[in-house]
Amino acid sequence: MDIKGFQFSAVEAAIKKPGRKDLALIFSEVPAQACAVFTVNAVKAAPVLLSAERIRNGRVQALLVNSGNANACTGDQGMTVARETSRLVAEGLGIPDEAVQVSSTGVIGVQMPADRIMAAVPALIEGLSSGTLDDIAQAIMTTDTFPKMEARSARAGDISYSVAGVAKGAGMIMPNMATMLSFIISDAAVEPVFLETAFRNAVESSFNAITVDGDMSTNDTCLIMANGMAGNPTIAPGTPESAEFEKVLHDVLLSLAKQIVKDGEGATKFVEVRVTGAASNADAKRAALSIANSSLVKTAFFGQDANWGRIFAAVGYSGATVDQSRLSLRFNDVVMARNGVFAGGDAEARGTEVMKLEEFSVEVDLGLGNGTATVYTSDLSHDYVSINADYRT
Amino acid sequence: MDIKGFQFSAVEAAIKKPGRKDLALIFSEVPAQACAVFTVNAVKAAPVLLSAERIRNGRVQALLVNSGNANACTGDQGMTVARETSRLVAEGLGIPDEAVQVSSTGVIGVQMPADRIMAAVPALIEGLSSGTLDDIAQAIMTTDTFPKMEARSARAGDISYSVAGVAKGAGMIMPNMATMLSFIISDAAVEPVFLETAFRNAVESSFNAITVDGDMSTNDTCLIMANGMAGNPTIAPGTPESAEFEKVLHDVLLSLAKQIVKDGEGATKFVEVRVTGAASNADAKRAALSIANSSLVKTAFFGQDANWGRIFAAVGYSGATVDQSRLSLRFNDVVMARNGVFAGGDAEARGTEVMKLEEFSVEVDLGLGNGTATVYTSDLSHDYVSINADYRT
Repeated sequence: MDIKGFQFSAVEAAIKKPGRKDLALIFSEVPAQACAVFTVNAVKAAPVLLSAERIRNGRVQALLVNSGNANACTGDQGMTVARETSRLVAEGLGIPDEAVQVSSTGVIGVQMPADRIMAAVPALIEGLSSGTLDDIAQAIMTTDTFPKMEARSARAGDISYSVAGVAKGAGMIMPNMATMLSFIISDAAVEPVFLETAFRNAVESSFNAITVDGDMSTNDTCLIMANGMAGNPTIAPGTPESAEFEKVLHDVLLSLAKQIVKDGEGATKFVEVRVTGAASNADAKRAALSIANSSLVKTAFFGQDANWGRIFAAVGYSGATVDQSRLSLRFNDVVMARNGVFAGGDAEARGTEVMKLEEFSVEVDLGLGNGTATVYTSDLSHDYVSINADYRT
Repeated sequence: MDIKGFQFSAVEAAIKKPGRKDLALIFSEVPAQACAVFTVNAVKAAPVLLSAERIRNGRVQALLVNSGNANACTGDQGMTVARETSRLVAEGLGIPDEAVQVSSTGVIGVQMPADRIMAAVPALIEGLSSGTLDDIAQAIMTTDTFPKMEARSARAGDISYSVAGVAKGAGMIMPNMATMLSFIISDAAVEPVFLETAFRNAVESSFNAITVDGDMSTNDTCLIMANGMAGNPTIAPGTPESAEFEKVLHDVLLSLAKQIVKDGEGATKFVEVRVTGAASNADAKRAALSIANSSLVKTAFFGQDANWGRIFAAVGYSGATVDQSRLSLRFNDVVMARNGVFAGGDAEARGTEVMKLEEFSVEVDLGLGNGTATVYTSDLSHDYVSINADYRT
């Protein structure tokens, strides 16, 4: 995968624990067209506040990201660290401060080790000559058990371009991207307003359609940078090229989102929750998220228990319009319930077999309208509790 | 505790498993003034639908309740069972069908063993001569590890009266009373409209202020019956007697609510979450519930980890108006954070000591206004996962 004009670097700054790369840099040789979505949590980390302010002009040339410390609930001191570290990077790269995005993930409420980060920046910039996107994927991991990357190529006119991305997730994942970081890069030339629309749509059906535990972090960020160095004719909306770009962008984001769910803390199952027949798409998403966030449903997944009643209960309190006598439910192709009651026959035995699979789908038809939604989630296991009970120690 | 004019009975009907009492009856010798609140889940169990319809006239003389089967997601057949079993009880007691409330708790989506229940009704009625309220508390248990009862006495004029109650809860508890049943009886004479107001207020600050896992069931019911057989002058609103009645009623409900939290599935901690300084009381309750329902906060409680950042994160996504630079937080009397940042000093060590207690309080001051709210919750432990992964087996 060749993504023209991007350079990568990652180093050990000993931000939390020595012995792993925890500070990373993505650099575009020319200013890239960029946009981002950030957490909607009212408690926002310093790098989120700074990056959101900077990205308004739509141009980004570098991203400085660290793991091990979220730089959240750190007040003025946290803002100063975010500004100063990004200034050092800007100086080293010879670009304006405002062209540097900053991002952090890790423990909340602990001040950043600014000295160690500042000391590591020269080596970080030095490393740009030899780093890869994989280094970035590794350096942003926290409780993730594997690095998350995806890439696709497409053509605009005669020119081939690429879209690639990295992500980190694991715990605290839910719509609006709780403690999720994802950075997408492309060498395509894309019309700015269209880039933003395509990006927001892709985020909505990927990162905003996954949930692990219903919590939402202070640091969520999804950023895209498109630097145009592939040399393609600029992709404009309403063309065959724009549809192709939307598709590859969506594919990259959905792949990253699914990787996050599969690596959900303690997850042993990957479940696609599909709601159809809702009064509206919004109702369908409400019902699907209610199922996907229910602790009782998720522990039943973990227990491989075809407890379909809990799923109807979760639909019932979701806020979606529901007529219980019209509800039906399938686990994969096994009809568990129809018209609100158990389907009978061998549904219990067959449903239990489905629940033993590592991946399966739950499909609820509300029987009311044409609204649909799909979300992706994991189960709630003993390991989720262990990981999160001991996270800071 | 003498509660005049009430009789109790419980028998084994082998509804789910033999060997335990699972069918119970409360009978008032005269029709009682009554009101109830039911689940707001759109998927409602058959007994909830039937009881809600019947209680509109405000008079109840008997309650038939079973554990082991929720009679939810059971369609027309479930409604028929609820009607027929209550008819048999009404006949046996010589009262109208409409004076019988029915209530169920247990597994969802399985048809009731109507024959076994019908066969047990004669013995159930027979047993009224010798049963106690404690028998009811025992018979309604599901995953509860102890029966939940409370009683208080007070005076109206020269006459002493009592308010007593039983409850079952354990898992699936959250505001609006998910899989929670509570039955309150009193021999006081109470003016009907005042009874309803006092009851709804008491429910709001007790059962609707507790949360274990954020799920909400299909069967929640809280019912009060006041039969007037103490012979007191009828308690009317705006009198010293009404204030006294409100107090004892609240005390009984709050005690039962706290017992439910302490018996939350797998719970090892009892935590009072208090939010002050909110822009409104509604905002304060939103923030308090967001903290109390956060899987990440609750696993930190279980891990005895003074991870205050997660609490601020939960406040941030609660929907309450929040200015992160004004947030402060205490664990008991230990100030963990102020002005949105760590309080420093020995707060970490002292906060960790608080988290080791079985009971402690978390107090967040939003620093914005005068809104306050208190909710009660438990932690999220390995045992919660075990209990709910294996619930049906």
